[in-house]
Amino acid sequence: MSKLSTLTALLHGPDQPGLVARVASWIFERGGNILHADQHRDMEAGIFFQRVEWQPAFAAAGTEPGRPTTEAAGRASVAIQAMADQSQGRPIDRVAAARDFSTFAQSSLGMTVRLLASDDRPRVVLFVSKADHCFHDLVLRWKAGDFSCEIVAIVGNHPDLGSAAAGYGLPFFHIPVLPDRKAAAEKEQLALLRDLRADLVVLARYMQVLSAGFLAELGVPVINIHHSFLPAFAGGRPYHQAHARGVKLIGATAHYATRDLDEGPIIHQDVARITHRHDVEDLVRKGRDLEKSVLAQAMRWHLEGRVLVYGNKTVVFD
Amino acid sequence: MSKLSTLTALLHGPDQPGLVARVASWIFERGGNILHADQHRDMEAGIFFQRVEWQPAFAAAGTEPGRPTTEAAGRASVAIQAMADQSQGRPIDRVAAARDFSTFAQSSLGMTVRLLASDDRPRVVLFVSKADHCFHDLVLRWKAGDFSCEIVAIVGNHPDLGSAAAGYGLPFFHIPVLPDRKAAAEKEQLALLRDLRADLVVLARYMQVLSAGFLAELGVPVINIHHSFLPAFAGGRPYHQAHARGVKLIGATAHYATRDLDEGPIIHQDVARITHRHDVEDLVRKGRDLEKSVLAQAMRWHLEGRVLVYGNKTVVFD
Amino acid sequence: MSKLSTLTALLHGPDQPGLVARVASWIFERGGNILHADQHRDMEAGIFFQRVEWQPAFAAAGTEPGRPTTEAAGRASVAIQAMADQSQGRPIDRVAAARDFSTFAQSSLGMTVRLLASDDRPRVVLFVSKADHCFHDLVLRWKAGDFSCEIVAIVGNHPDLGSAAAGYGLPFFHIPVLPDRKAAAEKEQLALLRDLRADLVVLARYMQVLSAGFLAELGVPVINIHHSFLPAFAGGRPYHQAHARGVKLIGATAHYATRDLDEGPIIHQDVARITHRHDVEDLVRKGRDLEKSVLAQAMRWHLEGRVLVYGNKTVVFD
Amino acid sequence: MSKLSTLTALLHGPDQPGLVARVASWIFERGGNILHADQHRDMEAGIFFQRVEWQPAFAAAGTEPGRPTTEAAGRASVAIQAMADQSQGRPIDRVAAARDFSTFAQSSLGMTVRLLASDDRPRVVLFVSKADHCFHDLVLRWKAGDFSCEIVAIVGNHPDLGSAAAGYGLPFFHIPVLPDRKAAAEKEQLALLRDLRADLVVLARYMQVLSAGFLAELGVPVINIHHSFLPAFAGGRPYHQAHARGVKLIGATAHYATRDLDEGPIIHQDVARITHRHDVEDLVRKGRDLEKSVLAQAMRWHLEGRVLVYGNKTVVFD
Repeated sequence: MSKLSTLTALLHGPDQPGLVARVASWIFERGGNILHADQHRDMEAGIFFQRVEWQPAFAAAGTEPGRPTTEAAGRASVAIQAMADQSQGRPIDRVAAARDFSTFAQSSLGMTVRLLASDDRPRVVLFVSKADHCFHDLVLRWKAGDFSCEIVAIVGNHPDLGSAAAGYGLPFFHIPVLPDRKAAAEKEQLALLRDLRADLVVLARYMQVLSAGFLAELGVPVINIHHSFLPAFAGGRPYHQAHARGVKLIGATAHYATRDLDEGPIIHQDVARITHRHDVEDLVRKGRDLEKSVLAQAMRWHLEGRVLVYGNKTVVFD
Repeated sequence: MSKLSTLTALLHGPDQPGLVARVASWIFERGGNILHADQHRDMEAGIFFQRVEWQPAFAAAGTEPGRPTTEAAGRASVAIQAMADQSQGRPIDRVAAARDFSTFAQSSLGMTVRLLASDDRPRVVLFVSKADHCFHDLVLRWKAGDFSCEIVAIVGNHPDLGSAAAGYGLPFFHIPVLPDRKAAAEKEQLALLRDLRADLVVLARYMQVLSAGFLAELGVPVINIHHSFLPAFAGGRPYHQAHARGVKLIGATAHYATRDLDEGPIIHQDVARITHRHDVEDLVRKGRDLEKSVLAQAMRWHLEGRVLVYGNKTVVFD
Repeated sequence: MSKLSTLTALLHGPDQPGLVARVASWIFERGGNILHADQHRDMEAGIFFQRVEWQPAFAAAGTEPGRPTTEAAGRASVAIQAMADQSQGRPIDRVAAARDFSTFAQSSLGMTVRLLASDDRPRVVLFVSKADHCFHDLVLRWKAGDFSCEIVAIVGNHPDLGSAAAGYGLPFFHIPVLPDRKAAAEKEQLALLRDLRADLVVLARYMQVLSAGFLAELGVPVINIHHSFLPAFAGGRPYHQAHARGVKLIGATAHYATRDLDEGPIIHQDVARITHRHDVEDLVRKGRDLEKSVLAQAMRWHLEGRVLVYGNKTVVFD
Repeated sequence: MSKLSTLTALLHGPDQPGLVARVASWIFERGGNILHADQHRDMEAGIFFQRVEWQPAFAAAGTEPGRPTTEAAGRASVAIQAMADQSQGRPIDRVAAARDFSTFAQSSLGMTVRLLASDDRPRVVLFVSKADHCFHDLVLRWKAGDFSCEIVAIVGNHPDLGSAAAGYGLPFFHIPVLPDRKAAAEKEQLALLRDLRADLVVLARYMQVLSAGFLAELGVPVINIHHSFLPAFAGGRPYHQAHARGVKLIGATAHYATRDLDEGPIIHQDVARITHRHDVEDLVRKGRDLEKSVLAQAMRWHLEGRVLVYGNKTVVFD
């Protein structure tokens, strides 16, 4: 929501008294201004979680004292960043601020930390198959400015969405995944993702299982959309399963892909009401709306640095 | 919703042309007036389902032609019913009309049929344990006129809700269910339900499994509320399961009890959103609201003759 | 949902005994097979509403007795329709069946009737302005087969969406609506819609008020999406109004356009939860999702013949 | 959610750099441990809002370093509080800690502050009329432990709920409000509320307008439930208004009562879907469920110190 130049840190680790004060003071003493801070404690496990977003000194410096306006701060930030890039040795640039904070959080507080800069635009690759609804939905939202990222490529195991991708001006890579050359296909995908410098992979109804080896090798998060209310109806053809069981609600689940299929940390879920009048085809149609909105919301939260994974669960600072 | 004296039939059987016309004509030719009729076809299975509600001749006769008002019809119905009870041999009373329709539907149409008269008040027995939220909720709704039934007794395997039942003026029967005397307890329950002439048993968080033998012997429907979004988290402690998995929605499911635990035909389901901030205790608290509203809705639909069971699924004419 | 060749009638008029039977018998006697029938009575006003969908004889004739399958019926329908087209004088074609039913319903039952044939594809024109989210959403759903219609043209008062329309292969007409030439613009629009033989106009965030004269002259339904939960926040800038009032839910309303702005019969509404964290821009963004889904659902229901207007309200047979 | 002995502060005032750090440091330096802290900035208005909950020194002192358990802290708190009560002059008790923090927040930070101690049990008075659903709902939730408060009395302008109140062991005061003695009735109510030392008044479908004078004199918050989705259908008989307009959703709104009827700051809202099948009576019935859940949620949030009023809006830290 903020248009300011900010840093966002996601922290977690063993709880100890004074964590909020120490983080806030560290930022304040270096001239930063905290815009949002949200904490959570898992009482059972004794773990502290925090999301904190702040303007580092180089950005805050140019704002009016006391009441910065979005526009003023935005302009100031650009100007000062330019200066900072020319200056030498003074740790006022974004990269340095991020590095310093990480060192502090890890060494002094013993926390695991992930840092995002609002000026960075993560590079996202969409994996698709034949179904096009999530693909169109994500690309149109991105073009409307909903996502703070660059969609740099579309990878399909079928060629069907190639011309649609071209229509949006997006590079499309067709990498078939045949039963007997899955390993080769994954190798090709990994090479491509490395070339593209992907920061995030989103499976927009990709419908293929990624191997544990692929995920380990890849090293960046993968978000998947499963077309059921997990853990109900895991596995294949969930709408057929739901119809057979006679449930009154269908759902969709966005989660991080892990080596255990359909078992990864859940980011977001939603449901829609159905009746006996809906056949499997209707479920599929209604489900498309769920899949679109749930996947888009999960991707947005991830890009805004609102999702913190620990164990097999997520903390979503929404 | 109707305050008129009506009959409601729930029909299902093999589809054949002309079913709607034949049912409607049968009613019309006997002076009845259809108030609601709703059909459904399961295309795959070739099964026809219908719910039809009508005023039989004895009730419709007393209304103004063309535009019956609720009040007029209600008064007329009482007066004419009185007459009908005194008359002899003329098939204008409710019981005869119901019997005639059933014969027609079964013999001429080959349909399975269930009939309800709006003037009948089914006799309902609530089974409870220690948790009181569904118990209070159902009794208060009943006292507010939401349910067209008589709650004739409360049966508890623990004595905890005895005084609350007494406060509502409801008989309470304490039948302990200890591991080593479950069969004896069920025998006692069956005898009691027979004495009470129960038409419906509602398990208001009863927390005990009913044996297949008990259900077969009982011969009337049993509605249960399960505190999860079935089929997810079947079995015990579903809120603990949900918390451990990290789902973002919790649910409740009202279903008919069958010999397969948690597998009976689902009547109604609903969900509520949760976050990482909610611990198991919060889930239990939020779940109580779901359990209350889902069970009340299922019981209401059942009593209004809106739920038709076939196979392991329901058709709900809402 | 049905892929059979069917007719759907929407009827309403003064209630009278036997309406269900007479409609069903008329269809049955002519060899038709009722697939769905749904009635409603407005008790206060004494008005009867019905939606009935059936296979006329020409389609039903080719099906297996007792248990028609979708595929078989579909193939049969095509074959028999071909025969029917070659036959002479026999009133077994769709147009004749529709005309006969209308005559019956109006003359014999005194009902107002609207008829749709499932094989007809109504011609739809979308009116747009600059915002593109509803435009893309409706066109993509249409391409996915969600709507039984032809989108024949896009009309914009701004040229912005011209190239997007071209990308979808859809004709785009730019008709500017300047304050001093609104009457001229409406005249131009009317001529165009007549040329296009439009059956339905959908205002996909068109943002211009249509004059009473335009609507009267047009003679086909116009569906509009208003970006608030009407009647709250009628008029301009509803998200600003909602933000100023501090409501906790925002909404969207699809309604038929009438001469009274924002007062037409409501077809569908939905809401989304917001918090103090959302500024007006967030409301606009979240609102886009509501607007898309609510308008698409309303358009779909209209095209399936599920919406019956009477007075300033709708009956939606969903 | 916390069972620890805590203080919760709700702060708001002009934004300035370092507020988070200064608040957190103040607490940390005095041996307190922050459990939750949530900030919000109104960018347009330049206002900072914070909710912070912490264990003051006297409670935190007894916990194990690093990983306090709920039980241990609870026991420690009791023990230490006992000691604190015996000690003299040392500002380690709750009242002193609260007073010190308030002074700091007001003098040093220029913030408006409201403080709650988790061990305090605010004294709540319910105002009722004839409708009993919200009354039963709130009392049963309170008895189930959902609300951290004491319900000390029921005040009715009709005697109807007197015996139900007695059944719960709650004092009932019947103060009739006749058109010609409204001022006298309000005077009587004020005297009673002063005697009862009420901290909060909840209008559980009280259905009477409170005068501006009454509210000013009273000096404690009043929460009302309005049976519509405000601002739609303000004023009387909202369900009749909703039915007449033909909306597809009905709602309920919990808000603080102010001198402008139905215009007070909104705390919570929810909606339920309705169709043409629902008459006004059905709307009333369905509305009862909304009213109960929305009012209970608003009351709970208020009691947990989650609601901060500014201008005519609320910030709800949920």
